[in-house]
Amino acid sequence: MPSKDNFEFTETELLDLEVGEVLLKALYISVDPYMRGRMSDAKSYVAPYEVGKPIIGGAVAEVVESRNEQLPKGTVVVGSLPWQQYTVHAGKGLLPVDPEVAPLSYYLGVLGMPGQTAYFGLLHIGQPKAGETVVVSGAAGAVGTVVGQIAKLKGCRVVGIAGSDDKITYLREELGFDEAINYKTTDDINSAVAQACPDGVDVYFDNVGGEISDAVLLALNKFGRIAVCGQIAFYNSTTPPTGMRIEPILLKKSALMKGFIVSDYSSEFGSAAKELATWLQEGKLQYQETIKEGFDQLPEAFLGLFTGENTGKQLVKVADREG
Amino acid sequence: MPSKDNFEFTETELLDLEVGEVLLKALYISVDPYMRGRMSDAKSYVAPYEVGKPIIGGAVAEVVESRNEQLPKGTVVVGSLPWQQYTVHAGKGLLPVDPEVAPLSYYLGVLGMPGQTAYFGLLHIGQPKAGETVVVSGAAGAVGTVVGQIAKLKGCRVVGIAGSDDKITYLREELGFDEAINYKTTDDINSAVAQACPDGVDVYFDNVGGEISDAVLLALNKFGRIAVCGQIAFYNSTTPPTGMRIEPILLKKSALMKGFIVSDYSSEFGSAAKELATWLQEGKLQYQETIKEGFDQLPEAFLGLFTGENTGKQLVKVADREG
Repeated sequence: MPSKDNFEFTETELLDLEVGEVLLKALYISVDPYMRGRMSDAKSYVAPYEVGKPIIGGAVAEVVESRNEQLPKGTVVVGSLPWQQYTVHAGKGLLPVDPEVAPLSYYLGVLGMPGQTAYFGLLHIGQPKAGETVVVSGAAGAVGTVVGQIAKLKGCRVVGIAGSDDKITYLREELGFDEAINYKTTDDINSAVAQACPDGVDVYFDNVGGEISDAVLLALNKFGRIAVCGQIAFYNSTTPPTGMRIEPILLKKSALMKGFIVSDYSSEFGSAAKELATWLQEGKLQYQETIKEGFDQLPEAFLGLFTGENTGKQLVKVADREG
Repeated sequence: MPSKDNFEFTETELLDLEVGEVLLKALYISVDPYMRGRMSDAKSYVAPYEVGKPIIGGAVAEVVESRNEQLPKGTVVVGSLPWQQYTVHAGKGLLPVDPEVAPLSYYLGVLGMPGQTAYFGLLHIGQPKAGETVVVSGAAGAVGTVVGQIAKLKGCRVVGIAGSDDKITYLREELGFDEAINYKTTDDINSAVAQACPDGVDVYFDNVGGEISDAVLLALNKFGRIAVCGQIAFYNSTTPPTGMRIEPILLKKSALMKGFIVSDYSSEFGSAAKELATWLQEGKLQYQETIKEGFDQLPEAFLGLFTGENTGKQLVKVADREG
């Protein structure tokens, strides 16, 4: 368990801008559970953070000086940035966002990585049709809540799997999920899934892997689709994990399984954000965030993730927009 | 091991045709290894044959009497038919074939189920691009040989996995595979695959499952595609098999895996047969068959599959075409 002692605030001098570079002022910084994984040397899909260097993660920032024609002063961007109030940046890999569409903080949540992850995994891989049954694991998370709500929008029966009764209630009563399963208090996850999905499972959005996912696959319908988004059951594995063979199920059901990472769809981020924003404006998509104010609140905001302080997406507001 | 004693020839009287029915005269009957699996009560994806009833399998037949407008007398069809010289048939599920395009026997092999299985799995799921590496297991079989040859046609590097040195030689020297691995004589299948695929694996056509497939998945490239066509490693399993978890690999590689059965693509059988026939006529596709003559040769032809008598597809010719 990390503590405040693991964090240090330092000051450095900013270098002058080279051609193509921009000076970014941080407006909102995201704190996320996955960052804990990068604070370890354990082998993972993402490189560990380096001790003594700033954490890097999702942030919304404003271009306050520019030597890059594509990113003029005043542009607001979202990107993967160091936890700094100001950053000299090479100008690549930043996505300009429209401040008129939604609050800027939303670009770190429902309009950002988590929302887009839900959008592409569900719609591009899952391709849910009205009347079909969609199951999502990690259902109460920033991704899962959006998956379930989009599936409802598409006319599907939606079943969420999560790990506490509070989350189950939230999914059912606030977000309109048809069924929700608390895997921690269920004796037999296989029959719990079968019972919640009397017509079988057509689409599975997998945030977790392991035996929860096995249970869903055992209920899969012919031509089922599985979007593999996360495998937290195995993130701490140091040897290749073993378990139920799923290939015979995919064969028998003529089913499709596809892994993905949101950046696979980066060319379509703009249009996805637009559609998600429309659903928000129409009140069809609910979104919760908890915002702490001040750059110095970053360690507390991050640590709070592990004690359940936040409801919905946790952010830190660093500064107001200038332009 | 089945023997001739398991077979019996009987005569029955044919009923008169009802409206919609046709009388079929068998021309060619296919004998296939998978039929052995249906001669057992062990749980499988296909229902077992019933003792005392005829075996059912792929056959080419001619309509010799018809009360069905869509299937006039003289039509040649391919379908799943009982091992009978004449059959009164309800007329559904039969695919008319063009006798001008290729020898009629080819509709049980390269233009029939095995060829079409190769065609759809490789082209629709695998989507190979020139320069990519395609691996096929069960490579010397009726499906695998077509998979590899189509992949070569598409400009790919093709690696086959099979179970004897004769097969390896056949794949390399007769069919033009770039590499072939004898998994039975390889100490370390993982490194054998890695060595045969220095640029990794882009497409895997899986006829076998199990540890051979694990080895291929460990060499998978980003955005790899896997067509799951067979899982013979598990056909005799009575409990759900376990093994290496593949979901973390699919996630890390943004890879797609899809199971299928050739009937998923039945609406496109005609156009696939046409393209396969064109490749045959142009000499781009090699195809071998062994034909025994006479309905009474069916048991021997079938039993010969298990002693390696046949080269390529084994068939029995039952009669000449009338029309």
